[in-house]
Amino acid sequence: MTTGTTQGLEGVVAAATHLSRVDGAAGRLTIAGYDVEDLAPHATFEQVAYLLWYGRLPDVRELEALTADLSARRRPPAATLGLLREAARHAIPVMDALRMAASTLSLDRRESPEDDARTLVATFPAIVGAYWRLRNGQEPIQPKERCSHAEHCLHQIFGGDIGPERARGLETYLNTVCDHGLNASTFAARVIVSTRADLVSAITGAVGALKGPLHGGAPGPALDMVIEIGQADRAEDFIRKKLARGERLMGFGHRVYRVRDPRADVLAQAAERFYASEGNRELYELARAVEATALRLLAEHKPERRLDTNVEFYTALLLHGLGLPNDLFTPIFAVGRVLGWTAHCLEQLREGRLIRPESAYVGPTGLRFPAK
Amino acid sequence: MTTGTTQGLEGVVAAATHLSRVDGAAGRLTIAGYDVEDLAPHATFEQVAYLLWYGRLPDVRELEALTADLSARRRPPAATLGLLREAARHAIPVMDALRMAASTLSLDRRESPEDDARTLVATFPAIVGAYWRLRNGQEPIQPKERCSHAEHCLHQIFGGDIGPERARGLETYLNTVCDHGLNASTFAARVIVSTRADLVSAITGAVGALKGPLHGGAPGPALDMVIEIGQADRAEDFIRKKLARGERLMGFGHRVYRVRDPRADVLAQAAERFYASEGNRELYELARAVEATALRLLAEHKPERRLDTNVEFYTALLLHGLGLPNDLFTPIFAVGRVLGWTAHCLEQLREGRLIRPESAYVGPTGLRFPAK
Repeated sequence: MTTGTTQGLEGVVAAATHLSRVDGAAGRLTIAGYDVEDLAPHATFEQVAYLLWYGRLPDVRELEALTADLSARRRPPAATLGLLREAARHAIPVMDALRMAASTLSLDRRESPEDDARTLVATFPAIVGAYWRLRNGQEPIQPKERCSHAEHCLHQIFGGDIGPERARGLETYLNTVCDHGLNASTFAARVIVSTRADLVSAITGAVGALKGPLHGGAPGPALDMVIEIGQADRAEDFIRKKLARGERLMGFGHRVYRVRDPRADVLAQAAERFYASEGNRELYELARAVEATALRLLAEHKPERRLDTNVEFYTALLLHGLGLPNDLFTPIFAVGRVLGWTAHCLEQLREGRLIRPESAYVGPTGLRFPAK
Repeated sequence: MTTGTTQGLEGVVAAATHLSRVDGAAGRLTIAGYDVEDLAPHATFEQVAYLLWYGRLPDVRELEALTADLSARRRPPAATLGLLREAARHAIPVMDALRMAASTLSLDRRESPEDDARTLVATFPAIVGAYWRLRNGQEPIQPKERCSHAEHCLHQIFGGDIGPERARGLETYLNTVCDHGLNASTFAARVIVSTRADLVSAITGAVGALKGPLHGGAPGPALDMVIEIGQADRAEDFIRKKLARGERLMGFGHRVYRVRDPRADVLAQAAERFYASEGNRELYELARAVEATALRLLAEHKPERRLDTNVEFYTALLLHGLGLPNDLFTPIFAVGRVLGWTAHCLEQLREGRLIRPESAYVGPTGLRFPAK
């Protein structure tokens, strides 16, 4: 690497934002002024959308108007559904289908960033739900208009009655993951829109970035271990062997948070609440037993390092309880995060300028093209 | 702005690259070791593709193999053409259609970055050509296999015989614009692929970024002024009035190059050569006369600043001569630049790590969500 090149831009501050603050040292996540523990379990997704887009919570009438508007935008263009049918025939991964479909939202688009933000957030559940059903040989479901965004999202996947506890469980999850500083996908969206390109282009790019395995946040593997362990009394032996082999325990530790990830607490409580009324209570008890064992053994194994249960662990537990398969974990994360992406784009358009760093050339110069 | 925030990442080195060096102070552009003036007019596009992907020029057999492989990948998936038909019905801008179509290339994709790079570069001409024809009520043309990438590109738009001078004119253009350091679209591609996402995702994001008006490089307006002036003897009066009103002369000056943009020289010669044998010689003479007048008046008007004819001016002149309408200038630029985008992605996958800068939070903290 050439001197002066900042590998991965680590530690470089690339944007000022009013949207969220990740304070890893204090274990605190602020979302537009509110601690995530205060906001996520109590607000509706529509309230959080208003907060991120307009910088404050809505009053009753503002909330009603936004809720009605989002609800009216739930249906993707017909051509988008046609493309999803084709994608299902090719059995491509859900994230690729979501990226393709997101890009087609230009078909019906009015040329206003705010319009685009609303349409993108409103249509993602129908895209994910329709594609999942088509992949599984089922027909897409007509969007339900008179229900919350979170309930609509589950209804698009499962149909039938969703019930308030499931809807509330998902809503808490969507609120919890709606924004998290300048992660790679959010940064990709800001780079794209910094050219004054449109939000459909920016969010399509963000979906592509989220797909990458280094992006982080894939919650599937954490629960896989719990299921593999199967019985609480096998946890100690299983985990001891894993640690002895030098393997990483999925579901514990985080790159940024040195204390605890506040999102983990929110989702732990949401899971506790959900499993108290619905879902597979046995799996929940098993997961908590495995967690307790894992934390005890990690403290023994690496006493110098504090490794807490991370957000992926509780995400997997909660989403699994809601009936969502592993393959939908990242797409459902996108359904929440698309809100933050759009808010960052609107902020970038209001306040930012072209994002254009430089490269250091490390190749040869002065070669001569051979004469013919 | 918070202290420490680097607005737009200006001057921050975000990647080391072997692909190109933009030396604005010296007026020099190096492409994988070769000066652009040496490479672009003499190499085939296929040679440049090999150079950027593999770091050296190909021998005869390597070039034959790559040429045959690219040629076999020219046809987009059937579903992509179906989507372009739908897009044409909505008359959406060409860049939006290109982004949508690029994103669908996952449908037939094999999961190798090198495969994706080849497919993306090979199919862009058919996507742009098919969409342009559909938008104009014409049917797409079957890809021609036994011809160069540049000839194929013009054939997809116009059909019929292209002729060697036109193909050579476009080839020089594509080579000239194939890479140019870390511009915003290239950076967007690198950010996306830095998560280990696939190249289709990354290039879809780059197309979105290129669409933005701040990206730079839109050559249309430079020629518009020439056409508006119409006659050489009206140039002086027209330009004097424009400068007196404080308006910018499109086609002159560049953000990075302080001396001269070497690409402008390459394209000026390509235009000279092309118009010597084909095209509207009158327009060419007019453009050169307008240019001479503009440079003289700019030197009078801003003697402290050296403003040269820029790459957009000659791009517009050359592409217009090849029969391409303004609306295709940026899409044809993408047909050239997609090569650099893919090469940057392959380089990022080989050498780079996750690109994830930080944001500075400038909003409030500690607000309390109202109890119900």
